[in-house]
Amino acid sequence: MHVRDFSEDELLGLIRPHLPRAEGIEVPSGDDCAVIGLAADSVAISTDMLVEGSHYRPEWSTGYDVGWRAAMQNAADAAAMGARPVSFVAALSVPGDRDVEWLVEFARGMGQAARRFGAGVDGGDLTRGPATAGVTVVGDLSGRPPVLRSGARPGDRLIHCGVLGWSAAGLHFLTSGAVAPECASVLPADGERSPAPNGRAPDGPDAVVAVYKRPNPPVDLALAACAAGRIRALMDVSDGLVRDARRMAEASNVGIDIDPAALKCDVDGLVCAGVRRELAKGMVLGGGEDHGFLATTPNSVPEGWRQIGSVRELDPGDERESGGFVTYGGRNVPKGTGWDHFRAERV
Amino acid sequence: MHVRDFSEDELLGLIRPHLPRAEGIEVPSGDDCAVIGLAADSVAISTDMLVEGSHYRPEWSTGYDVGWRAAMQNAADAAAMGARPVSFVAALSVPGDRDVEWLVEFARGMGQAARRFGAGVDGGDLTRGPATAGVTVVGDLSGRPPVLRSGARPGDRLIHCGVLGWSAAGLHFLTSGAVAPECASVLPADGERSPAPNGRAPDGPDAVVAVYKRPNPPVDLALAACAAGRIRALMDVSDGLVRDARRMAEASNVGIDIDPAALKCDVDGLVCAGVRRELAKGMVLGGGEDHGFLATTPNSVPEGWRQIGSVRELDPGDERESGGFVTYGGRNVPKGTGWDHFRAERV
Repeated sequence: MHVRDFSEDELLGLIRPHLPRAEGIEVPSGDDCAVIGLAADSVAISTDMLVEGSHYRPEWSTGYDVGWRAAMQNAADAAAMGARPVSFVAALSVPGDRDVEWLVEFARGMGQAARRFGAGVDGGDLTRGPATAGVTVVGDLSGRPPVLRSGARPGDRLIHCGVLGWSAAGLHFLTSGAVAPECASVLPADGERSPAPNGRAPDGPDAVVAVYKRPNPPVDLALAACAAGRIRALMDVSDGLVRDARRMAEASNVGIDIDPAALKCDVDGLVCAGVRRELAKGMVLGGGEDHGFLATTPNSVPEGWRQIGSVRELDPGDERESGGFVTYGGRNVPKGTGWDHFRAERV
Repeated sequence: MHVRDFSEDELLGLIRPHLPRAEGIEVPSGDDCAVIGLAADSVAISTDMLVEGSHYRPEWSTGYDVGWRAAMQNAADAAAMGARPVSFVAALSVPGDRDVEWLVEFARGMGQAARRFGAGVDGGDLTRGPATAGVTVVGDLSGRPPVLRSGARPGDRLIHCGVLGWSAAGLHFLTSGAVAPECASVLPADGERSPAPNGRAPDGPDAVVAVYKRPNPPVDLALAACAAGRIRALMDVSDGLVRDARRMAEASNVGIDIDPAALKCDVDGLVCAGVRRELAKGMVLGGGEDHGFLATTPNSVPEGWRQIGSVRELDPGDERESGGFVTYGGRNVPKGTGWDHFRAERV
């Protein structure tokens, strides 16, 4: 059965059972808006677009994978402000000849990801068209000030939690045909934690493919560090470590030095998983969509995080285009290194 | 110049000047999330998907029109809860060969529509792909309870503000080639009110085409009536009067009687504008995307609204499928009358 064989109401009836409600829900999906109660009178909001063929390929990612990823990458954006993801809404366009099971799986994946945080999927819009999903997260700051990427100060430690380069390595294995897209053996069962612990080497190609298909940002670690007041600047790493570090450096008007020794285990881990060494470093430094967290702190390293560099003053002679904002092993990293969706260049 | 000739950052630099910020903005676009201060600790949220070729045709609607409509139809959803639209975020997918001017015009149209309410366009995601836009609105209830579609009670007046059938008539004129898509003479200049007053006949074909291209929901009238405490049930009319009235009736478990005499002026107005009489009634009753407001009140009719029917108890013998929920001139309106995006049937 294809989606065009059902009315909109019938399709909503099929997917609604898979969608949890926000804990603070005041008006659930079904009216003109959902209404969500927050712990305080400000809201963090972010939106992401997933385009089939660009952000995922249907032959590699199931509907469940896509729904999961749509929720997770938005959850990471909320947590990157120190906000708890409390609710998602999804604007979804689906081709008429898509099997309706794909849509149900999308809802199930998104719902399971939302449940991870006690969040809801509290609204959406469903229409026929090319497969794209615009997903928006509502984040609750609970009265705490948001943690900005502009807060880094000279002398801070540069810290990270999550994985680096696993998603890029997973994409590489799928592209090269080295891994069957199912790799079902290592994908976590519903509700289980996907294999993305900090600082651990992947067990093999399947483990990094699993992160590509179902990223699992360590939202709890980010929120715990924020709640403890230990974090001065914070962002999620979605476009590659060096590109996002540069954004933090520019926003904070500081220099950031990344320590190669701290990333050696990440590079070695990808090599152990089967990535050629000459590719592994680029994946760790430039690979996107791992959705770990990059932060700075003047204090000790919070549990579950690790130090990967330090923050310094900008030299007066540094020019923005020269790359003085970010160094790796003492060498400037040129601006533009990393992923750009429009030019689709990868350096 | 096409969008693929620019980096994402360059494109954002081009469109950002056209985007206002929410009045309560605490963290503007540029970090992982925008943070918006609200008057109280709950938020109304809704999202809509616009698909090129389905919701609009690029040969009829400019980028400005599409951006305007994306904001307006979401604003109507917020107002339909009694919430003031305070902020929008947009997930936008644009083909690489699209002229960059289209993107700038989209931003300008969305920005101008947001300004109408003092709202911001405070975040987004821009990616390459088929032209689709998922736009989300943040609505501020200011501590008042939301006004639901389920609140209608027997004895209430059924009231409406805005236009009925104009958007459908505009689409009809464009489809039949009776009106040139530009019809620039009647499109409102930036910041002006588009010609959609209540109960007035359209001046001609151009006037209804203008509503199709740039709907102008009477958000102020809806919010004023809610603030005065006069409204018991409220929704925006996006899928046609009878279809949406049925949703209100089902949600409230009441019957709704629509009075043909009250809609005669709407039908006559479309006929005057050049619509054949045998089509005009269907447009008034079934045409979508006018984004007026349907409400019920136990009190007198608020200023700017008009009564178009009444609310009664459901007869014990009424069955949901029989259509007893909604009558027009005493005759049952069958379920399913109106617009369905998936089956694309129009009755």
